Amino acid sequence: MRPKIYLFGDSITESSFTYGGWGASLAHHFSRTVDVVLRGYSGYNTRWAVKVMERVLPAANGESESERERVSTIAVTVFFGANDACLPDRCGAFQHVPLHEYKHNLHSIVSFLKNRWPNTLVLLITPPPIDEEARLKHPYVENPTGLPERTNEAAGAYAKACIEVAGECGLPVVDLWTKMQQLADWKTAYLSDGLHLNETGNRVVFEEVVMKLKTEGLSLENLPVDLPMISEIDPNDPLKAFEG
Amino acid sequence: MRPKIYLFGDSITESSFTYGGWGASLAHHFSRTVDVVLRGYSGYNTRWAVKVMERVLPAANGESESERERVSTIAVTVFFGANDACLPDRCGAFQHVPLHEYKHNLHSIVSFLKNRWPNTLVLLITPPPIDEEARLKHPYVENPTGLPERTNEAAGAYAKACIEVAGECGLPVVDLWTKMQQLADWKTAYLSDGLHLNETGNRVVFEEVVMKLKTEGLSLENLPVDLPMISEIDPNDPLKAFEG
Repeated sequence: MRPKIYLFGDSITESSFTYGGWGASLAHHFSRTVDVVLRGYSGYNTRWAVKVMERVLPAANGESESERERVSTIAVTVFFGANDACLPDRCGAFQHVPLHEYKHNLHSIVSFLKNRWPNTLVLLITPPPIDEEARLKHPYVENPTGLPERTNEAAGAYAKACIEVAGECGLPVVDLWTKMQQLADWKTAYLSDGLHLNETGNRVVFEEVVMKLKTEGLSLENLPVDLPMISEIDPNDPLKAFEG
Repeated sequence: MRPKIYLFGDSITESSFTYGGWGASLAHHFSRTVDVVLRGYSGYNTRWAVKVMERVLPAANGESESERERVSTIAVTVFFGANDACLPDRCGAFQHVPLHEYKHNLHSIVSFLKNRWPNTLVLLITPPPIDEEARLKHPYVENPTGLPERTNEAAGAYAKACIEVAGECGLPVVDLWTKMQQLADWKTAYLSDGLHLNETGNRVVFEEVVMKLKTEGLSLENLPVDLPMISEIDPNDPLKAFEG
């Protein structure tokens, strides 16, 4: 059975199989070795994620299946915070989760995953930086206030909290907020609407995730291919490759 | 548990999660409803596919899992023939499968799938047309003969055989060979190397597959979403959506 990597997150995960998306790129990268399973939920914050995680990630119907899943799920990316970081007094207030609760919820998600699959790599990803001017140009709900529903400063606070949780749990983390801002024109280079990722931004997430997985021993060099590659098939006796 | 669509085929399936690939587009299309599972094997023909299908598609470890898989696999695309159609006296000869055996092998694959999952939709896809000049420019193995390893005429014979098998089994089929050639400049419009699909060619496969699935009742209108969409969440009482 081919191992799985679950992508659990919000809209930046849900849209990750669009053109050049980081999820699709992962699936392509691991096309002969791993199933990349999409579990992205647009608009969700960690409060809602905690409510649904039992349903989102495969329930164990009896011991043998539980055992099987434990073996086969090699990694889960947890990518929340962009919605939690909506400001509590702006038009995205219903998605807001206070910073201390965000940390607590991330801990709950990690505990749940570690309890279900003790040997599975949990990889946290911080929210991306926010381009506030672009958020005003691309509102999701009516926003006559002239104030963006998210700020880059708030996103940074949630990113920092995410990194703290990773440290407290001994987990790897992709610090997307910092990584992206290392480029001077990050607002246009990586973002499509001040929040979501364009093709280049998706590329950054893909590369960072592949690098972290590799550091943790999950790479094309280490993961078995389930069936012979064409290069391993003897042109003079092709069927030999499929014996036994 | 979210239903699955398996993509079983050769390199045109294996590479379907690349930029704008038809597999990635399907996964994006069904991002909240279906898991699209990649089972593409570069270079494989139906003779090899028959040898590996038991291992490729999930084995049933006991009745309860078998039951679960039967319910959850809603469709399988079977997309072979491009390698079978390699000419027997050219440089791709080791991949060649005679036409009558190709038909027999497709029947075997369909029987296997129908036996494993009686209610699962099996969707056949014919090989694409071949641009012979482009094949000479993009050889996979040394080819000093000046003759392409595949011809469009041979691909057409395998496409016709695939359609016949679909008819004999009462299955839907995407006739890619004919569909693509309806465009005058199909060679450059759809193909990257005379055989594999460029982005526009991938788009054609995606659209044809979505249309066939829809005709068979598998569409966004009919498939349940596993968790509330953001539009269904009451901003004044978000948690209500997650009760029960």
